[in-house]
Amino acid sequence: MAQVRKLEVSIPPLDQEAMRQAVARQAELTKPAGSLGVLEELSIRLAGMTGRLDPPLKDAVVFTLAADHGVASEGVSAYPREVTAQMVLNFLRGGAAINVLARHAHARVVVADIGVDADLPAHPNLSALKVKRGTASITQGVAMTVEQAMQAIDAGRSLVREALAAGLDIALTGDMGIGNTTASASVICALTALDPVAVVGRGTGIDDAGLARKLNAVRRALKVNAASIAQGPIETLAAVGGLEIAGLVGVIVEAAQQRKPVLIDGFVSGASALAATAIAPRVNGYMIASHRSQELGHAAVLHQLGLRPLLDLDLRLGEGTGAVLALPVVRAAVHLINEMATFDDAGVSGHDNGPHPPEPGHNGGHN
Amino acid sequence: MAQVRKLEVSIPPLDQEAMRQAVARQAELTKPAGSLGVLEELSIRLAGMTGRLDPPLKDAVVFTLAADHGVASEGVSAYPREVTAQMVLNFLRGGAAINVLARHAHARVVVADIGVDADLPAHPNLSALKVKRGTASITQGVAMTVEQAMQAIDAGRSLVREALAAGLDIALTGDMGIGNTTASASVICALTALDPVAVVGRGTGIDDAGLARKLNAVRRALKVNAASIAQGPIETLAAVGGLEIAGLVGVIVEAAQQRKPVLIDGFVSGASALAATAIAPRVNGYMIASHRSQELGHAAVLHQLGLRPLLDLDLRLGEGTGAVLALPVVRAAVHLINEMATFDDAGVSGHDNGPHPPEPGHNGGHN
Repeated sequence: MAQVRKLEVSIPPLDQEAMRQAVARQAELTKPAGSLGVLEELSIRLAGMTGRLDPPLKDAVVFTLAADHGVASEGVSAYPREVTAQMVLNFLRGGAAINVLARHAHARVVVADIGVDADLPAHPNLSALKVKRGTASITQGVAMTVEQAMQAIDAGRSLVREALAAGLDIALTGDMGIGNTTASASVICALTALDPVAVVGRGTGIDDAGLARKLNAVRRALKVNAASIAQGPIETLAAVGGLEIAGLVGVIVEAAQQRKPVLIDGFVSGASALAATAIAPRVNGYMIASHRSQELGHAAVLHQLGLRPLLDLDLRLGEGTGAVLALPVVRAAVHLINEMATFDDAGVSGHDNGPHPPEPGHNGGHN
Repeated sequence: MAQVRKLEVSIPPLDQEAMRQAVARQAELTKPAGSLGVLEELSIRLAGMTGRLDPPLKDAVVFTLAADHGVASEGVSAYPREVTAQMVLNFLRGGAAINVLARHAHARVVVADIGVDADLPAHPNLSALKVKRGTASITQGVAMTVEQAMQAIDAGRSLVREALAAGLDIALTGDMGIGNTTASASVICALTALDPVAVVGRGTGIDDAGLARKLNAVRRALKVNAASIAQGPIETLAAVGGLEIAGLVGVIVEAAQQRKPVLIDGFVSGASALAATAIAPRVNGYMIASHRSQELGHAAVLHQLGLRPLLDLDLRLGEGTGAVLALPVVRAAVHLINEMATFDDAGVSGHDNGPHPPEPGHNGGHN
């Protein structure tokens, strides 16, 4: 058996002292304890990730990684394979949903070709990191070699390092790849005890016959690649994953290593998040789940990750759209803990611990 | 029996033609049909409300109405009554959660004293519309006269008209009033078939004994005021409601009459939304539910309103905080339908309607 591949990575533990300070601060703010719900928890988690109560979240970078999938030729998607490359061009022209959302959310989009099966023109906003022109079909054998998976992970890591040099405060994950919900479902099933029936969904909107083909493809992929899957998470990514899925593992791992929060998009990013957690469990502490996708298995993925999504809007587009939509909520959590007045500042009375008046009796004996 | 009070109001129907155009436009954008989920529905509803696919949503105005409640003296809140006035001062100094959120969301907060039981200082950002210094306790009789309820509704309407003159594009509801979840629960139970046990929650965080007092207070309020409740929704507001609850009815009704979308905050605003719908059913078409509150009965209120909340973050603060947090999602829906490229623009292939390849057979007879 081949040597199991390991990633060189060192994820710092969460800063417990900063988290304690955040808890204490939340108790002083002019609001009933706990009344900001998930936003309070988020402010505490962000303190743990970054070591401060006021982490900057200004430079938000969406990493939208694109690649093709051999399995797409087996009728598992509602769209033809060439749409991957067409959508990359759409990203570069600024016409896709992720561009519109990022523009208004003050986020920037890093588009990377990590394995598109087309010759894309050079473009100042395109990171050309093609590992190969699409994967082989996962129903016939491995999608890529372990070397290629490692190369894709490294490519993702290099994107984060480059963005860090330009000021990155928070990383957002995104994906484009016709056929990638089939590969993602396979990765998810391989890394968990979930049955394909509970994970394989309609992706971009395939019909019933296509859904049956997709389910069958995932089952065959898991069977054909069982030996590789048994070796470990990187081998699993190589066997049944995709180049953008592996690349996003690199994005997540590198951001966590640099103590930057990572806002995880939907189903495909969820597969990457599961793989990243399997490779380096501490990365999980740096993840924020942006939304619950409409894609069938996504809720189960979030449950496995132990993450509660911020939004639940029946999205199933990918690209990083859910992550960007959740960004204002994350920023709001930090604004609130830093900018709200305290009870002392504002001269507001705290929680009423004094005696309550006796419960008034019923009037007149009516029942 | 007194003449049942009616509101002079004329709510325009939704613009069906604009909604058809929005549906058609959504089908042309470079994304799988339906993949933007709730954001697509929202863009269609907003077209219906405003008559256009690109309604401006720039000038977002949060109407945070404050008032006191006689029932607060019966131990139904975790906070003392004077907190209402203290929080109004906090709003005016910009230190409350709603101020922080509005600042970053590019929204403006209109703070109105519609019935605070204190002499508040004049302040350029305070709308002084006090109807009276707090309501009488709803457990002993009516909270206010029907005249006073009408006056509070009119005050809410006048706030919207004033904001419209200054450019209002979208109205957001907000509230402050110690004791107001008790009054809101009473209004909700009075207007629906819901039992108090399913509606009365912990508000700002009352303990078990307080919750029992609160439940008892709501039951007594409903019994004592049964005759008024039977008369109609305005009489119900007067009997078991509150001045800010009635004021928000005015905000909602007037915004709808002017064809402006209304982003409804949490539990207290939900009571107002129910009352507004009972008074003028068409206003319901202009409502967007911002979030599902952690307060017990709120999910049932949303169900009654037929609205799906955009956020579910366990908030229970009021002030308009949930509405402001949802504002970026509403704006995003409009940005997407207006700014995304179409399949034709972008040269992206549409849905694959061609024949799919035959399903590949199993390899080698493995089961």
